[in-house]
Amino acid sequence: MSRWEPNARGRLEQAALELYRERGFDQATVAEIAERAGLTERTFFRYFADKREVLFWGQGALTELYVGAIAAAPDSAAPVDAVAAALEAAAPVFQERRELGRQRQSVIAANPGLQERELLKRASLASAMADALRKRGVTEPAASLAAEVGVIAFKTAYARWLSDPDQQDLSRLIRESLGELEVMTAGRD
Amino acid sequence: MSRWEPNARGRLEQAALELYRERGFDQATVAEIAERAGLTERTFFRYFADKREVLFWGQGALTELYVGAIAAAPDSAAPVDAVAAALEAAAPVFQERRELGRQRQSVIAANPGLQERELLKRASLASAMADALRKRGVTEPAASLAAEVGVIAFKTAYARWLSDPDQQDLSRLIRESLGELEVMTAGRD
Repeated sequence: MSRWEPNARGRLEQAALELYRERGFDQATVAEIAERAGLTERTFFRYFADKREVLFWGQGALTELYVGAIAAAPDSAAPVDAVAAALEAAAPVFQERRELGRQRQSVIAANPGLQERELLKRASLASAMADALRKRGVTEPAASLAAEVGVIAFKTAYARWLSDPDQQDLSRLIRESLGELEVMTAGRD
Repeated sequence: MSRWEPNARGRLEQAALELYRERGFDQATVAEIAERAGLTERTFFRYFADKREVLFWGQGALTELYVGAIAAAPDSAAPVDAVAAALEAAAPVFQERRELGRQRQSVIAANPGLQERELLKRASLASAMADALRKRGVTEPAASLAAEVGVIAFKTAYARWLSDPDQQDLSRLIRESLGELEVMTAGRD
């Protein structure tokens, strides 16, 4: 039984991100992460199943947040508006963690295996949102298309937001990306 | 030196898809595939680096086709129209291989590792199309958004086309998916 450690998850996450960037994801060990955080390996494994999980642990909560927001959208909301509401509902979570987000992206960008994992997580997020839309009575292919549109709008907005130091408002960038998608697809047959 | 075998690639591909479906991708061996095709393992490895490559060997040619068609689109073409032209240019390749395409999808759907690989291939296709658009002077984020829109329109159209026995025209379904994306994103702020 180990004693309670204040903010153990946050300290482990920060230590892991530092080490992944200094030494590369594959080289950094759980022992080093725990040591840098001033905690034990045992404590690490209480929070994370493995090294990779440090980068992706938020996925479950994020999926629930999206699915909940889609379910809670007004009956009159069009599919893509329900998705937009979900993305905006989650924006504060990212706003609060901008510096961690930036470090996380640089670790993922340096490692093909992590990129692959991120694609998979993104696909499963799109699929959960499409499910939530179908529960609202949206038919296919509209449900899948709206979910995929949401995912690419978010991805684009998030990358812009991370890379622009003056940019404060992720929600506004999400709306802008959706607006660009509208202009882009307008006027086709 | 082995002698020339007529349509060795096609025979190996057909034998592999049959075995992947009968026994599961992980269980089927190259020796079995070669035997069923009436060829040697050595011939297998002349065409495919490994078992997985049987499912993804067309990726390189497809990327070249897309990139070439985007480069060849009229100067006046909007980004998403250049992408649409590329997707339609490649449609006959899929039309000719519908039954193989259907078998291939069922193998991939049964195996998470193959799904992951397919996501990666799709992401690299989107990234090659975005590159081709930037070479036409399209700026970001328009280039990436147009490429991603193309990929999801194609994915949706292709799934519909494979699952509907009466559906003959993949190009028409691609245009329909792009049209649905237009309707879907229209009228947002």
